[in-house]
Amino acid sequence: MNRKALHKISYGLYIVTAENNSTPGGCIINTVFQITSEPPRIAIGLNRENHTHSIISQSKSFAVNVLPEETPAQLIQTFGYKTSREWDKFQGLTPQKGEATGAPLLLNETMAWLECKTVESVDVGTHTIFIAEVVNSDITQPGASEMTYKYYHEVLKGITPPKAPGYTPPEKNSTDTWVCPVCGYTYDPQIGDSSHGIEPGTPWQDLPSDWVCPLCATAKEYFIQNRDD
Amino acid sequence: MNRKALHKISYGLYIVTAENNSTPGGCIINTVFQITSEPPRIAIGLNRENHTHSIISQSKSFAVNVLPEETPAQLIQTFGYKTSREWDKFQGLTPQKGEATGAPLLLNETMAWLECKTVESVDVGTHTIFIAEVVNSDITQPGASEMTYKYYHEVLKGITPPKAPGYTPPEKNSTDTWVCPVCGYTYDPQIGDSSHGIEPGTPWQDLPSDWVCPLCATAKEYFIQNRDD
Repeated sequence: MNRKALHKISYGLYIVTAENNSTPGGCIINTVFQITSEPPRIAIGLNRENHTHSIISQSKSFAVNVLPEETPAQLIQTFGYKTSREWDKFQGLTPQKGEATGAPLLLNETMAWLECKTVESVDVGTHTIFIAEVVNSDITQPGASEMTYKYYHEVLKGITPPKAPGYTPPEKNSTDTWVCPVCGYTYDPQIGDSSHGIEPGTPWQDLPSDWVCPLCATAKEYFIQNRDD
Repeated sequence: MNRKALHKISYGLYIVTAENNSTPGGCIINTVFQITSEPPRIAIGLNRENHTHSIISQSKSFAVNVLPEETPAQLIQTFGYKTSREWDKFQGLTPQKGEATGAPLLLNETMAWLECKTVESVDVGTHTIFIAEVVNSDITQPGASEMTYKYYHEVLKGITPPKAPGYTPPEKNSTDTWVCPVCGYTYDPQIGDSSHGIEPGTPWQDLPSDWVCPLCATAKEYFIQNRDD
């Protein structure tokens, strides 16, 4: 089995947002497809550990904000690699409350949006599939091109966070490098990390679990594997 | 609500195949996403009316064949606009039986394939979401680019068949044209169809349900709306 075949599935890139009891949440997802035409329903996949997942579970509604190719990397980093539990992801943005769901619509940052009400949620292990009816939608940038996951990887050199379904677990003794999502420091097994006494040749898996970024002290668990394909 | 916002969701293009009791089936889908990494699971959406749907319901397994950009339009027409009930879609092809599922793998026509075993199926009205574990997979054309739905529409001028989730029902009195999937004849409401006594200015909706293609007699229900976006 060649797991890299799974990387040949095509995706777009979206910020899914939701609000419950005045608590907003949002995160990057690529797992969205329309499932029926009448009524218009979509399915999205979301990691159960995401804060936005718990908000959607309560509000039973969400918005899908479609990202254009021109999306700044900073916006993807904020919504993709940080958690709403510890970080105000909407800081500096001016989201508009969706009329049908109350979910934050990022009108200035996105090219289209869909307000959705959940009709069913399916537990699939680490992730949930929310099936939802699209109750309101519009295009905000008619001329823009949709950001695809492929464009994100190939042009923007984006990386897949561990909570994403398309994340590939590291192979043992892999020489892949790992990137700090906060400051951009790269851990290269061939170089090691002398500031923490880590010898050159130490694979990522052998770093202690309490190892942190030597530049900004971000925990090891938040590091992102540099995918080589 | 602007339903065209739903067209901003990005997709790839795939042939999903399956076999049960020596009966093979296959059809074009765009609705595929990976839902978990461990174990590797994907979700696909399929119209209940598709012959391939009934085969998968019985075999509880299928293969996703990933189409490259170079896919000939003829292959998409065969698997997208015809039914396995009346047509041998595999005629002239040399599919290989998947070891894990028995599903036909189109090794020569596709760039990657995934053999999958269904773990759950979710009824969503006209369509079913099959959630399945990827049990075998490989890349057959490492240098090829995945065909995206956008590429199919913009470059190949592809059209969305009525059974697809992304199909937009015609607006009343729309001046959109309709294409015969078999011979390519285009019904233009402004021209009508004099061979059947249909006056110029007759909207698609007002054509009798037993109207057929004036060139090849394909039934009205198989015609495809030319999507204008």
